[in-house]
Amino acid sequence: MTGWLRVIGLGPGAAGLRTPEADAALAEATDILGYGPYVGRVKARPGQRRHETDNRQELDRARHALFLAEEGARVAVVSSGDAGVFAMASAVFEAVEAGPAEWRALDIAVLPGISAMFAAAARLGAPLGHDFCAISLSDNLKPWELVEQRLTAAAGAGFVIALYNPISKARPWQLGRAFALLREVLPGTAPVAFATAVSRPEERLVLTTIAEADPESADMRTLVLVGSAGSRLIARGEGERPWLYAPRSARP
Amino acid sequence: MTGWLRVIGLGPGAAGLRTPEADAALAEATDILGYGPYVGRVKARPGQRRHETDNRQELDRARHALFLAEEGARVAVVSSGDAGVFAMASAVFEAVEAGPAEWRALDIAVLPGISAMFAAAARLGAPLGHDFCAISLSDNLKPWELVEQRLTAAAGAGFVIALYNPISKARPWQLGRAFALLREVLPGTAPVAFATAVSRPEERLVLTTIAEADPESADMRTLVLVGSAGSRLIARGEGERPWLYAPRSARP
Repeated sequence: MTGWLRVIGLGPGAAGLRTPEADAALAEATDILGYGPYVGRVKARPGQRRHETDNRQELDRARHALFLAEEGARVAVVSSGDAGVFAMASAVFEAVEAGPAEWRALDIAVLPGISAMFAAAARLGAPLGHDFCAISLSDNLKPWELVEQRLTAAAGAGFVIALYNPISKARPWQLGRAFALLREVLPGTAPVAFATAVSRPEERLVLTTIAEADPESADMRTLVLVGSAGSRLIARGEGERPWLYAPRSARP
Repeated sequence: MTGWLRVIGLGPGAAGLRTPEADAALAEATDILGYGPYVGRVKARPGQRRHETDNRQELDRARHALFLAEEGARVAVVSSGDAGVFAMASAVFEAVEAGPAEWRALDIAVLPGISAMFAAAARLGAPLGHDFCAISLSDNLKPWELVEQRLTAAAGAGFVIALYNPISKARPWQLGRAFALLREVLPGTAPVAFATAVSRPEERLVLTTIAEADPESADMRTLVLVGSAGSRLIARGEGERPWLYAPRSARP
């Protein structure tokens, strides 16, 4: 048997947002590896081995996957959203670069998925319809000063900002600090959206402004979108959330 | 019949990269609207009307779609990639905001797709595995000085940059100017990838450096990715393109 490794983006959760390409690879895999809740989204199949690991063991999981593929297994490493966006694909390539030369000859492919930021944007309207950026607020692997530098540069240049990894028990203050920093650069009316578990039963959307944004509206499953001075809201009927979008045209 | 409007991201091209949610909406639609080549990707169905329009008529197309939905049609407006990323979703909401109040009560939804940037990234490795941004080089709807300001801010802050709308007959010089600007900020070895028509038969990938990057490598279908000083290449066997990825950790 010739082994392979597929790094698979499962999309935000709903089956209708998972690609046929991802489904096909999952059906052929002998081994599924990933953070427990993500592996739990994959239908169990007879004879298929499931390796559920903790959220923080990305590099160990990547090495494990490469060992299995080298031995001939068909290995699926699963991430939520898109595997290339603050997810497992980078960890796999870090492991390849640092690992034995044979790993560079393995049959590896990354299968893209619907990212959390685009799923959230679609629900809200079209807030990423113009220039935008994505920043992880985790300071596990980069200094906090770099996060601040990037937030300031992005908001100052008028990018709409998607914040990944906004908050967790281990990182309780970062989102509040980010909002405080962004308030110095953006008008207080700039919209902020908290999009939690989009497309899953527990989906929750909160739309507010940077002046009013409360870090408590976010948890580990939340994608936070921070609009720019150019972001637009379209009021709808009573009880309906306004549409949020970025016009195609922009002024400095 | 109750009309609706779905703004649908078709993904980069391959059927395996289109979501089941998008396929289901396309099957139920009475009218398909979009730029000709994108409508051409949708299987023709008996009784379904197809409205193929030119690339530049986004706002007219959006209004047309809203009129049809108001009259009771089930309308699919299709974009390549993700409809919310430099595509039709923003044009639809611009038309809603400027249009009659009744349009705000229409049943509108955006269905996300696999974006060109994530499809390209997956083929190359994981170049967007850390903080990144997306910038359109089109200066039809924003002044070129704003493009330059954003390029400088993004590269200076260490973002990996995805360039949309890099080049066309009407915009022949912008990509060369962008490269020249980026050469002043980035090390000459920063990787640049040209990803054209990913997942389609004519797919073409070119990997080079910012020092060597040639705008002639791009056409209208190309997504250009500009790495940062932190981007990594993993050499593979003879004749194989190196993997390109962003490590999870970053330094200022």
